[in-house]
Amino acid sequence: MSDILDQLSVVLEERKQAGAESSYVASLHAKGLNKILEKVGEEAFETVLAAKDAEITKNNQALICETADLWFHSLVMLSHLGEDHRSVLAELARRFDVSGLEEKASRIKK
Amino acid sequence: MSDILDQLSVVLEERKQAGAESSYVASLHAKGLNKILEKVGEEAFETVLAAKDAEITKNNQALICETADLWFHSLVMLSHLGEDHRSVLAELARRFDVSGLEEKASRIKK
Amino acid sequence: MSDILDQLSVVLEERKQAGAESSYVASLHAKGLNKILEKVGEEAFETVLAAKDAEITKNNQALICETADLWFHSLVMLSHLGEDHRSVLAELARRFDVSGLEEKASRIKK
Amino acid sequence: MSDILDQLSVVLEERKQAGAESSYVASLHAKGLNKILEKVGEEAFETVLAAKDAEITKNNQALICETADLWFHSLVMLSHLGEDHRSVLAELARRFDVSGLEEKASRIKK
Repeated sequence: MSDILDQLSVVLEERKQAGAESSYVASLHAKGLNKILEKVGEEAFETVLAAKDAEITKNNQALICETADLWFHSLVMLSHLGEDHRSVLAELARRFDVSGLEEKASRIKK
Repeated sequence: MSDILDQLSVVLEERKQAGAESSYVASLHAKGLNKILEKVGEEAFETVLAAKDAEITKNNQALICETADLWFHSLVMLSHLGEDHRSVLAELARRFDVSGLEEKASRIKK
Repeated sequence: MSDILDQLSVVLEERKQAGAESSYVASLHAKGLNKILEKVGEEAFETVLAAKDAEITKNNQALICETADLWFHSLVMLSHLGEDHRSVLAELARRFDVSGLEEKASRIKK
Repeated sequence: MSDILDQLSVVLEERKQAGAESSYVASLHAKGLNKILEKVGEEAFETVLAAKDAEITKNNQALICETADLWFHSLVMLSHLGEDHRSVLAELARRFDVSGLEEKASRIKK
């Protein structure tokens, strides 16, 4: 399921290399770090507002879309600074003492 | 690699069920949605500040930690509202026309 | 100097009453609270980014403009919820044990 | 009314000069810009959450307190960078074509 992040990461790198006119991702990189961080911030507030509304409406659709926007723009931020989701997931794995690699390995063996 | 999110999600659900005194995650759920959203917001600003500093210092360590904090608290937010990372990843997969399931299946076959 | 807020508050109320096509303020009120709060959030991040840049460039111009944007949109937020800057200033005066009214009175007498 | 900002500004400068152990303001300056900006960000999210709750409860008390926190920490930020509220109010006056000085002068004459 979550290998989606691996694939998305490949797509983001391809688009980063392309010209600014060719994609939204390329245009963000061309505008520079501040613009990317403004988008991360904007999406953080939209996520929080969507969560408040979801609590009342019991409908999570907007929350899912805004969280996707937040994660997406944080992936672009990581890419802009030469990093990707793997460092962040490794940090989370370390903190929670879980290991995707071992778990996946054992699952594939079955 | 990113099955870490699947495993982390299981850990988060276990801790959500536990009493508020037993873990940080449980205490966040007990304090309610506003407290969780305040943490998402706090981590969003800390991520942005770490990214600004990383651009100058060329050291991404704090950025990785703050992004991990941001993603972690957004996972707790999703869990609090009965959602998890899979809905968000499915939304990202749909937008970028990538499919974790097919890709994983083809890789396991090799 | 800071009676500017009193005057600005009058302007904001006038524009709130006008039709959505007639001013930016009216269009914000017409779009509703979430849109106003998204703008407050956006400007908060732009202020923080401008402050980080100001620390390095020693040029505060962008910081002043972004802080003005942040205060302006928070005034629109207050107005949308039937409040204005006076409640917020009274709260600050209470906390810091200062009183604009007394101080102004003593100054006018001189 | 809003000369409160003038007086508050004097208080903030006095406390900035004092030692870090002597006041909250001094301790913020001692911790540096990032800590001050984290507080601005935190209060921005708490303001937005309080506004969402105020819309439902029709009680603005928490909103007023959180907005006061937001403005207060943005004043500390300005002070940390050698600026104060007057530059921001002058920028707002310029945009909205209002002038606190003239207005006040005409009022005092009466």
